[in-house]
Amino acid sequence: MRYGYLATMRTTPGHRDDVVAVLLGGEDGLRAAGCDLYVVATSPSDPDLIWVFEVWPSKEHHHASLELPETRAAIAAARPLLTGELTGQELDIAGGVGLPGPTGFR
Amino acid sequence: MRYGYLATMRTTPGHRDDVVAVLLGGEDGLRAAGCDLYVVATSPSDPDLIWVFEVWPSKEHHHASLELPETRAAIAAARPLLTGELTGQELDIAGGVGLPGPTGFR
Repeated sequence: MRYGYLATMRTTPGHRDDVVAVLLGGEDGLRAAGCDLYVVATSPSDPDLIWVFEVWPSKEHHHASLELPETRAAIAAARPLLTGELTGQELDIAGGVGLPGPTGFR
Repeated sequence: MRYGYLATMRTTPGHRDDVVAVLLGGEDGLRAAGCDLYVVATSPSDPDLIWVFEVWPSKEHHHASLELPETRAAIAAARPLLTGELTGQELDIAGGVGLPGPTGFR
């Protein structure tokens, strides 16, 4: 079963789009690390909140991605713009529509 | 900007996998309705909770999908197995890796 991770992070006022840009800057590294899905989203009801939904072949892939130079650089760039209010939820991916990757989806 | 919707639903004890199967049964209808992404997930830490992460070309596409015969049938089949504890979060999709669809992703 593929591994999912759903995170939220709150930015300091006015810096949400800066952090979104940082999060979207490491895509080549994510692909090379085997990432199936990495979606960055914002909330129409909360101007300082960012959501990231990730799918990986395994928990180990996700863990390894946190050690990538691109990821470390992104974390370092984003941290001064975050309040420290973070959430993270591990998920077991059951299936669905539209997810790429070697095993495909039903 | 594409439209996202993140939902959670709690099932009555022992019925989580039944509801997951129901949710995964309407995929052809979702694709035909223009769905970019529909991922059903469960939680390793909460045995009765289901997460659904959806991406659509627009809010109107998502709204229309709720009127599909497949969707109505899935809701009718799942409802007796749910506690009524539901959450829903609208999202603006900023970008990322792996999302299919006509506009692609960076």
